[in-house]
Amino acid sequence: MILGGKRDESLILPTNDSISATLDTAQLHAKTTVMISPDFKEDRIWLNGKEEDIKNARLQNCLKEIRKRSQLSGHINDWKIRICSKNNFPTAAGLASSAAGYACLTAALAKLYKIEGDISIIARSGSGSACRSVMGGFVRWYMGSDKNGTDSLAKQIVPASHWPEMRILVLVVSDEQKKVPSAIGMKRCIETSQLVQHRIMHVVPERANKMQQAIVEKDYKNFAELTMKDSNQFHAVCLDTYPPCIYMNNISNNIMNFVHSYNDAVNDVKVAYTYDAGPNATLYLLEKDVPAVIGVLDHFFPPPENSLEYRRGLPVEGIKPSQGLLEKLKFQKYPPGQLKYMIYTKIGDGPKYLNNPQDHLLDDQGNPINCS
Amino acid sequence: MILGGKRDESLILPTNDSISATLDTAQLHAKTTVMISPDFKEDRIWLNGKEEDIKNARLQNCLKEIRKRSQLSGHINDWKIRICSKNNFPTAAGLASSAAGYACLTAALAKLYKIEGDISIIARSGSGSACRSVMGGFVRWYMGSDKNGTDSLAKQIVPASHWPEMRILVLVVSDEQKKVPSAIGMKRCIETSQLVQHRIMHVVPERANKMQQAIVEKDYKNFAELTMKDSNQFHAVCLDTYPPCIYMNNISNNIMNFVHSYNDAVNDVKVAYTYDAGPNATLYLLEKDVPAVIGVLDHFFPPPENSLEYRRGLPVEGIKPSQGLLEKLKFQKYPPGQLKYMIYTKIGDGPKYLNNPQDHLLDDQGNPINCS
Repeated sequence: MILGGKRDESLILPTNDSISATLDTAQLHAKTTVMISPDFKEDRIWLNGKEEDIKNARLQNCLKEIRKRSQLSGHINDWKIRICSKNNFPTAAGLASSAAGYACLTAALAKLYKIEGDISIIARSGSGSACRSVMGGFVRWYMGSDKNGTDSLAKQIVPASHWPEMRILVLVVSDEQKKVPSAIGMKRCIETSQLVQHRIMHVVPERANKMQQAIVEKDYKNFAELTMKDSNQFHAVCLDTYPPCIYMNNISNNIMNFVHSYNDAVNDVKVAYTYDAGPNATLYLLEKDVPAVIGVLDHFFPPPENSLEYRRGLPVEGIKPSQGLLEKLKFQKYPPGQLKYMIYTKIGDGPKYLNNPQDHLLDDQGNPINCS
Repeated sequence: MILGGKRDESLILPTNDSISATLDTAQLHAKTTVMISPDFKEDRIWLNGKEEDIKNARLQNCLKEIRKRSQLSGHINDWKIRICSKNNFPTAAGLASSAAGYACLTAALAKLYKIEGDISIIARSGSGSACRSVMGGFVRWYMGSDKNGTDSLAKQIVPASHWPEMRILVLVVSDEQKKVPSAIGMKRCIETSQLVQHRIMHVVPERANKMQQAIVEKDYKNFAELTMKDSNQFHAVCLDTYPPCIYMNNISNNIMNFVHSYNDAVNDVKVAYTYDAGPNATLYLLEKDVPAVIGVLDHFFPPPENSLEYRRGLPVEGIKPSQGLLEKLKFQKYPPGQLKYMIYTKIGDGPKYLNNPQDHLLDDQGNPINCS
């Protein structure tokens, strides 16, 4: 919920500290099997059922980092590996699929190679934001100051159990517009925005500390406001980029306006939005408020007609809003289908190791199974 | 094309210098008749055929300022006045109708009361941006430093004749979303954005000087890039406002992306966009490039079906784009009707005085005629 860009592209060093929550793998996850064997002639990787180029630079960064660390700890092993990975949610939809993927891969490889100590730096070498997702709960990625990036790593702020009431509602919106890929957009932002340096130097450091404090103190109101302000400012500097990068669409904006209208109507802060480099909204809210918010969302943003899988994730029932609340909510009702579906989830404990062979995505010979 | 907010709401003092072009009254104008008579018992005003409250604070500012200036120059006249005004374009559509209206009213009153010298300060007291529109060509509003606003006035950079090739294409887009009124939005921006002070202090001063230089030197490319960057940054600080203010919609964004795609495809800068506090795009381009740009716009943004008055303003024919250009333009074709209509116009010479009684909006008795 504190967003950022990169100061060094090749080492994946960020421009500022950032904070995120790791979502529960029970609802949204990447799943990865890694296998090592003297019989394998070359490294290979399959993603969501399709073989990908193992020479991908970020993947190689990650593999090299792992093998280096393994050697440092005295494990010499030059066998080739096979990797098979899949997500249970859409990739490249602004749902941080690459963060989940690289965090999962790193955790799997670290276990295989018996790496000890911090593995967030290894995950970072694959995909920056993945470094936060190798642990559960609320996590802060410290930008660090070393030019080689040795101190740019993630640390848990609190585990998921510290704030068990926190819930997440991901609103997946209809969208047809092509977006600038986030890595390109962020690079262009750092190079051309005349506001981003001010954000990095003078806004985020204090905001990240306040956010951390709000999390530690379970101060929802401050947490929510800081989250919304940081999302808005992140998209502001994307717009100040030249040419500009726009990730939010009309529906994203409608949800944003809805959240402010709802909070105004209940005269409190009950919901917060944040948008990553895409149009989908991630709402943070407390468990007790979820049924009311879902009820109002269903009223103003009716589900698509004949939608079979509109509500995903944890089971929940919306509460029909009172007439009084609807009148106070100065908001218009949209036609059905602005939201494609919603995923209800919570904060999770980070990577899980699956020991049951039925879960594995590679068979005994190292060929992909169950992986599309 | 350099946008701004206010540092003092009641005196209408801006946070930064700003620059605009005054459009030709032949295409877009406000028209105002003022009349004074010992027979009138009270001041009255009609706008677009409807009587409005003469006690409106901004109108009173303007009237008081005029009467004060008139008395200062020895003209004592306490007769009551009647004002009738109309625009030939939609009000509150982000087309600066209040700037045009107050500039026109000020010019009319100044003539009536025989005011000499600068009248931009009087126009400013009614509507800030009106101060630039009391003169023609490219105009700069100097923010000034006096706390009473005596040095916050507009000066012409160059007359329209300096850059006769410059053209303006206003794209009026379909829009149903309610917007935060710009005066409220700007106030909230100054109070809550953590980026706006950086914009005001460290970006705009240099940018306004560069813009002025580009205008004086008729350097279209620099003019265009500065215009686009300033529009984007203005909307960025609106988004960094809390709660955020969003004036552009998907169609606005599509036009913005189109402009960048077009400039990329022709490997030059041929079109520039700017957005005021609304979704409509104002494109600045040189006369020689207009037919080609209109041809490409018609291709990607087809007019609404059965549209009677799609092309407004100066006559112009689009040139059908070549297949080669369309292939280079990495852009998708939108369904008809994203643009409601377009107005083609140029830079104008500022207020015109209409002496033919047939043009007047008040009859001999001071009653409105021809004014709806």
